[in-house]
Amino acid sequence: MVNFVAYNPVKLYFGKKVIEKLPGEIIPYGKKALIITGKGSIKKLGYYDELTNLLDKSGIEYIEYAGIKPNPVVEDVEKAAELAQKENIDFIIAMGGGSVIDTAKVVSITAGSDLPAWKLMKKEVSPTAAIPLFSILTLAATGTEMNAAAVIQNHKTQEKIGLFHPLMYPKASFLDPSYTISVPKDPTVNGIIDLTAHSLEAFFGDGDAPLSDRLAVANILEAFDYSNDLLKDLTNYDLRARMMWNATIAENGTIMHGRAATGDWGTHALAHHISLLWDTPHGQTLSIVFPAWMKVMKEEIPHRIVKLGQLLTGQKEISADDTIAIFEMFFKALGAPLKMSEIGLNDKDKKELLHLWKQNKPTGLNIKMNENHYEKIIELI
Amino acid sequence: MVNFVAYNPVKLYFGKKVIEKLPGEIIPYGKKALIITGKGSIKKLGYYDELTNLLDKSGIEYIEYAGIKPNPVVEDVEKAAELAQKENIDFIIAMGGGSVIDTAKVVSITAGSDLPAWKLMKKEVSPTAAIPLFSILTLAATGTEMNAAAVIQNHKTQEKIGLFHPLMYPKASFLDPSYTISVPKDPTVNGIIDLTAHSLEAFFGDGDAPLSDRLAVANILEAFDYSNDLLKDLTNYDLRARMMWNATIAENGTIMHGRAATGDWGTHALAHHISLLWDTPHGQTLSIVFPAWMKVMKEEIPHRIVKLGQLLTGQKEISADDTIAIFEMFFKALGAPLKMSEIGLNDKDKKELLHLWKQNKPTGLNIKMNENHYEKIIELI
Repeated sequence: MVNFVAYNPVKLYFGKKVIEKLPGEIIPYGKKALIITGKGSIKKLGYYDELTNLLDKSGIEYIEYAGIKPNPVVEDVEKAAELAQKENIDFIIAMGGGSVIDTAKVVSITAGSDLPAWKLMKKEVSPTAAIPLFSILTLAATGTEMNAAAVIQNHKTQEKIGLFHPLMYPKASFLDPSYTISVPKDPTVNGIIDLTAHSLEAFFGDGDAPLSDRLAVANILEAFDYSNDLLKDLTNYDLRARMMWNATIAENGTIMHGRAATGDWGTHALAHHISLLWDTPHGQTLSIVFPAWMKVMKEEIPHRIVKLGQLLTGQKEISADDTIAIFEMFFKALGAPLKMSEIGLNDKDKKELLHLWKQNKPTGLNIKMNENHYEKIIELI
Repeated sequence: MVNFVAYNPVKLYFGKKVIEKLPGEIIPYGKKALIITGKGSIKKLGYYDELTNLLDKSGIEYIEYAGIKPNPVVEDVEKAAELAQKENIDFIIAMGGGSVIDTAKVVSITAGSDLPAWKLMKKEVSPTAAIPLFSILTLAATGTEMNAAAVIQNHKTQEKIGLFHPLMYPKASFLDPSYTISVPKDPTVNGIIDLTAHSLEAFFGDGDAPLSDRLAVANILEAFDYSNDLLKDLTNYDLRARMMWNATIAENGTIMHGRAATGDWGTHALAHHISLLWDTPHGQTLSIVFPAWMKVMKEEIPHRIVKLGQLLTGQKEISADDTIAIFEMFFKALGAPLKMSEIGLNDKDKKELLHLWKQNKPTGLNIKMNENHYEKIIELI
C-alpha cells in the first residue's frame, strides 16, 4: 500500500425524515441561504416545500437558483455564484441529484474565493475559501454528497472535467431514501450503473490495496444483490435505502484508500465525451464504455481483471473474459445500452466521438490510454 | 436499514514516515504537549526520540506520562488528567497501542471537562470539552485511532467498561506500519483476533444492513488472507500495512452503518471480565469467548450465523456449525487459545468468572444475554 490520508469530514444523516436535522446544522453558519435546484421535480413532489417550510420555521431567509441540467454546465455555476455574491448569502443548500450538488460545490468555491469558475475547474487557479455547503440528495447515483469532487461541462471548449478540492466537502448531507422512491426506472438504472462504475474505477486504481479491492467488490456485489428486486419494486423503501447507501460508499473514499490516486477514472473520462456531444445520461455512457474498456485493457492488466472476477465469484479459475461478461450481463439485465447504436447513434457519430477523444486525450490516472486504445474501444461500442 | 449518522472527523495519515506530518497538525492548537506512553518499548525502539526530536525542532514543549498498562486502569487516567491540568498543556499526544490511546482519550475529556474520570466512564456525568488529542499508533489491533471509543478498567469496582463520546475523536492519527514491525508474534496474533472480533461484533449488530454485512465480511476475509503470511514474516512492511489498515476499518464506522447501535459487543463484554480477573491479553479473551458465544447463540440467531458463513464462503448451503468452525480453525491456526485451560485457568477460575458475569450482567446491545447463556458459555470455554 502506498501512503495515503483518510479524511472525510462530511456529517451524513441517513434515513426517514432526516431533513428535520438540517436547521440544527445550518444555524451556526448564518441566516441566509442560496438554494440550488434542478428542473422542477422536487417542487412537484413537495420536497422543496418541505425544505422551505423548515427554513421559514427556523427564521432562515432564502433565494433560489433553479434549472440545473442533468449534465451541469459552467454557465449555471457562473450565474449562481454571481447571485450568491450579490445577495451576500451565508450558505448554500443544494437539493437534487449529483448535477445539482456538483454545481453547488463549484459555486461554493467560485463565490467563496471570488475566482472564475472555469479557471478553477481547469486548475489554473486554486480556491482559497468556500461558502458552507449543505446537500439534500434526491437521486442516488454519484456519491457527490460525501466527497469533495465535482464534474462540470463547458460546451464552448468541448470539455467535461472533474475537480477535487477539500474545500468542496459539504458540511452536512441529508439522505432520505423516501425522496428517491419516485425516481423512474431509467434514472434508477443509470444510478446503479454509475455506482457500479465508481466501484470499478476504485478497483482499477494504482498500486496494491487488497482490502480496498475487497471493499470495492463487496460494494459491487451489493448492487448485484438488490438491483433486480428494486427494478421490480421501485417504491420499496428498504431497497431504495440499499441503493442510496451503496452509491455513497462507492464514492466517499471507503473503497479507495491505499492508492495514490482515488481510482483510475479513464472510463469516466471517455464516457464524459458522449454526454458532452449528445447530452446522454451519464449512466448510459458508462454501460457502453466500461465493458469495452475492459476488453481492450485485458491485454495490459489481465491479472487485475482476473482478480476482480476471483473476488466477485470466489472462483480461482475465472478468466478475464468471463469477468467482463458478468458486467455485460448485469448492465444488459438492467436494460442499459452496451452499444452506441442502442441510444440512436450511428457510425458518423462514432467518428465524431473518436475525433474528440483524439483531441482531448482522455486517460486514466493509473492505466494510460493512447490513440490505439481509442480506436479499439470505438470499434467495440 | 435504520436511520443513522455517518460522521468521522479524524484525519488519518497512513504510511511510511507519516509522523513528519504531526507538527503541521498540532501547531494550530498550541505549543505544550502531554505525551502519554506505555511501558517503554517505544523508547527502546527509538520511536519516542523520533517524536521528541520532531517536537523540539518545531518548538513544542512536552511533558510525559508513562507506564500505561496493556489493560488500562482508571488510576492512570486520573493521574495523567491531574498532570495535564496542573501543567496547563495545549494538547495530548498518545504514542502506543490501544491502551495508551484509550487512556489518552479519557484523559482528554477528564481534564478538558474537569470531571471525575470514572463518573465519565459510567455515564453519570457528561463531558463538556476535551483537550485536543493526537495519536501515533504503534500496535495494530483496536481501531481506537479512528473512533471515539475507549475501554478502561477499575479494579476497585471490578468493572471494565467502554465509553463512546464524539469529544473523544482524535484530531489526527498517524499510522506508520514500520512502527509495528517489531511487535512480537503473540501481540500480533492478539491484534488479528481483536480486529476479527470487531468485524464480528459489527456483523451481529441490530437490524438489516446488507452492505455493512458485506463490508464486515470483506474485512474478515482480508485478515484470513494475510495472517498466515504475516506470522511467518513478521517484519514484512506490506503485510504489516495490511493488518494495520484492516484493524482501523474494523472499528472506524465503515462496517457498522445502517444499525442503531455500532454492533453487538456482548462478546467483548464477556471477554473484558477475563482480563479484569487475570489481566489476560484482550485478544486471548476474545478467541476463547467468541466461538463459544456463537455456539450458544446459534439457537437464537441461526439465520445470522448462516448468513455470515454464506458471505464468507459463497456457499448457500453452509451450516451455522460449519461457520463457527471456520473461526475456531482460524484462531487455532493463529496459535490462540479456545479454552481457559490453555491460558492456565482451572475450574475454580471458571466458577469465579461465572460469578462475576452473574454479578455484572454483561450483555449485547442487540443480542441479550441472561444467566442461562452465561452457564452454557462457561461450559464451553
